[in-house]
Amino acid sequence: MDVYEESLRIHELHRGKLEVRSLLRVDSPRNLSLAYTPGVARPCEVIGEDVSKAWSLTMKGRTVAVVSDGSAILGLGDLGPEAALPVMEGKAVLFKEFGGIDAFPIVLDARDPDAIVETVKRIAPTFGGINLEDISAPRCFEIEDRLQDIGIPVLHDDQHGTAIVCLAAVQNALRVVGKALVGSRVVISGAGAAGRAIARLLSCADGGDRCIPVGEVLVCDSRGIIGPHRDDLDPVKAQLLEHTNRRHLRGTLKDAMQGADVFIGVSRSRLIDRRDVASMAKDAIVLAMANPEPEILPDEALAGGAAVVGTGRSDFPNQVNNVLAFPGLFRGALEVGATRFTPGMKFAAIDAIAGCVVEPGPKRILPPAFDRSVAFVVGDAVARAAHADGVARIPLKD
Amino acid sequence: MDVYEESLRIHELHRGKLEVRSLLRVDSPRNLSLAYTPGVARPCEVIGEDVSKAWSLTMKGRTVAVVSDGSAILGLGDLGPEAALPVMEGKAVLFKEFGGIDAFPIVLDARDPDAIVETVKRIAPTFGGINLEDISAPRCFEIEDRLQDIGIPVLHDDQHGTAIVCLAAVQNALRVVGKALVGSRVVISGAGAAGRAIARLLSCADGGDRCIPVGEVLVCDSRGIIGPHRDDLDPVKAQLLEHTNRRHLRGTLKDAMQGADVFIGVSRSRLIDRRDVASMAKDAIVLAMANPEPEILPDEALAGGAAVVGTGRSDFPNQVNNVLAFPGLFRGALEVGATRFTPGMKFAAIDAIAGCVVEPGPKRILPPAFDRSVAFVVGDAVARAAHADGVARIPLKD
Repeated sequence: MDVYEESLRIHELHRGKLEVRSLLRVDSPRNLSLAYTPGVARPCEVIGEDVSKAWSLTMKGRTVAVVSDGSAILGLGDLGPEAALPVMEGKAVLFKEFGGIDAFPIVLDARDPDAIVETVKRIAPTFGGINLEDISAPRCFEIEDRLQDIGIPVLHDDQHGTAIVCLAAVQNALRVVGKALVGSRVVISGAGAAGRAIARLLSCADGGDRCIPVGEVLVCDSRGIIGPHRDDLDPVKAQLLEHTNRRHLRGTLKDAMQGADVFIGVSRSRLIDRRDVASMAKDAIVLAMANPEPEILPDEALAGGAAVVGTGRSDFPNQVNNVLAFPGLFRGALEVGATRFTPGMKFAAIDAIAGCVVEPGPKRILPPAFDRSVAFVVGDAVARAAHADGVARIPLKD
Repeated sequence: MDVYEESLRIHELHRGKLEVRSLLRVDSPRNLSLAYTPGVARPCEVIGEDVSKAWSLTMKGRTVAVVSDGSAILGLGDLGPEAALPVMEGKAVLFKEFGGIDAFPIVLDARDPDAIVETVKRIAPTFGGINLEDISAPRCFEIEDRLQDIGIPVLHDDQHGTAIVCLAAVQNALRVVGKALVGSRVVISGAGAAGRAIARLLSCADGGDRCIPVGEVLVCDSRGIIGPHRDDLDPVKAQLLEHTNRRHLRGTLKDAMQGADVFIGVSRSRLIDRRDVASMAKDAIVLAMANPEPEILPDEALAGGAAVVGTGRSDFPNQVNNVLAFPGLFRGALEVGATRFTPGMKFAAIDAIAGCVVEPGPKRILPPAFDRSVAFVVGDAVARAAHADGVARIPLKD
């Protein structure tokens, strides 16, 4: 049976993948009176007097909502909120399995950004963090921006999860070829959620002390390099002009690639070939993350002279998988009751993921996706960064 | 340590009482590709084509939201949404322990009925049912009413859960003393959420084929019998005039009790005494459910001549505990993918709970709260009633 039909069968068998369980037994009147009335009145009163106690007395401090409107489900497009549930349940499974975090899917019958922002604010008291998922661009940018001040960390994983793991990969790949981030030329193919987030992190658009800008960032969409010459840019792409393509270059993706040190693909399958890679600078780094087929297959990129190649797939070396980022990001944020994600927390995650590879090599620029220690290492780094950035509610554990 | 301090400690130890767990292992690339991408695309597509498949392919069909705004937490009043979490987690624990249902707390930072109604509608795609809890009157009535057509069953448990168990108790108590519901005089002390729901069920205000009206229902609030003579009634209490006190009686609670067959207390502790009970008809039934102290203690009621006495407490006989109702109500509704709760489903629950007592006696008018079979018996009856009433999506299991 292929993976699609087997997945369907498994979903039918279990009716999804998540269950909610009690941490207490309720097998006697005494236990009932501790878990529920009358005993439960005491934690209620304590939280009523000091709402910060909700982090230690309830599930809030260890629980994340995985929120979607079903408008951009995987590569399938807009299938509605119920059809997003299998993905959101899956995401919650990964939160638990890799980060030890309780996560719960909330799929919304709402499309208007105002309605989504409002709904997330209203349900926020239950949760310690919000993971936005599979919400179509450009609404995802506005929605995430407007939720930054609600008192718990909100992250659109399709943007930042991918960007963080990608930058960890770039960092180690540059170490492998002996180049520095400063001075490197990076070409990003794809100006969607992930492409924009990668460009912003590389060009320090989001601030943060620890940011080291690269020499040049060019972002290309299907019409070529994004620059001030383009009169067809929507407001979101136009924002990229503030931080990328400072030399105002024009041309196609292929033009952009000439002499570049790093190619980052978050666009379409089979978009470039070995000649494009051959036109890049010596010891080129190619991260081709289109799904299910990368922009260029690893063999082809290596034949074009690439020194390091990564993809989004588990069947090639150097898998850029955001399961390396989001469990640890939220783990660290929840551990200290962070009020938001700061750029410093994201850069801490990048460094921590990169640091999980003791000796990077051409086929080992990232830890394997199944390395269960990564989320804990990343979580510690993110928790420390939250403290350094003054967004933590809870002291660090020793 | 008293039950309050021990409960606080247990909440601190576990950080609440609920956890979200995966039903699948994710320990290999193959398993990851079944639980998540790319395999998960198939159930997404199937639901995208036919949304009713969400009931069988996701957690929706077995999951209930426990929704509160924290405005009426137990007897503590309005402490805010976070302070309601311990109660809502506890409720979810009971759903799982007694009904095998996955339930998840959603506490809302919203007070306006419009906002609460809107938010519940928006999050509904995740859930197969909504249990409203600890929302203050009169908003709870409006909110529940306006959510009846959202395509999944919505129940305010503080109203109907209590009312259903109370009516099962009345039914068996009448059997014990050899009286019929038709012709009986019932006095309800308390015109809040539970009192109103009991009055409506007894007087068939909610319709339903299987309803057998009692002879007379009088509802009393702190100012006495509710009747057309009262010029101080809010719109919710005024509604009671349509179905209760058809003889337009006036007077105090004590006046109302004279000659009554049944006293139902959902009001204040120690409100009546043995003389009031002595003034009732022969073989009086007294259900005094005020918390934590009943309207009259059982010994006092028996001394006044009551034949059957019940309270809300586990340390006296005949505990009226709504854990006998809500797990089975939702279990039955979810089993058949019901679009709503009908009066027929509620009456089916009443009969089923009453029927769980094989031989009712003065100290045995209800099954014990810890009888795990009740939710399953009630669930079967509710599922059949949903089919009879034409609100089921899924065929009955044999």
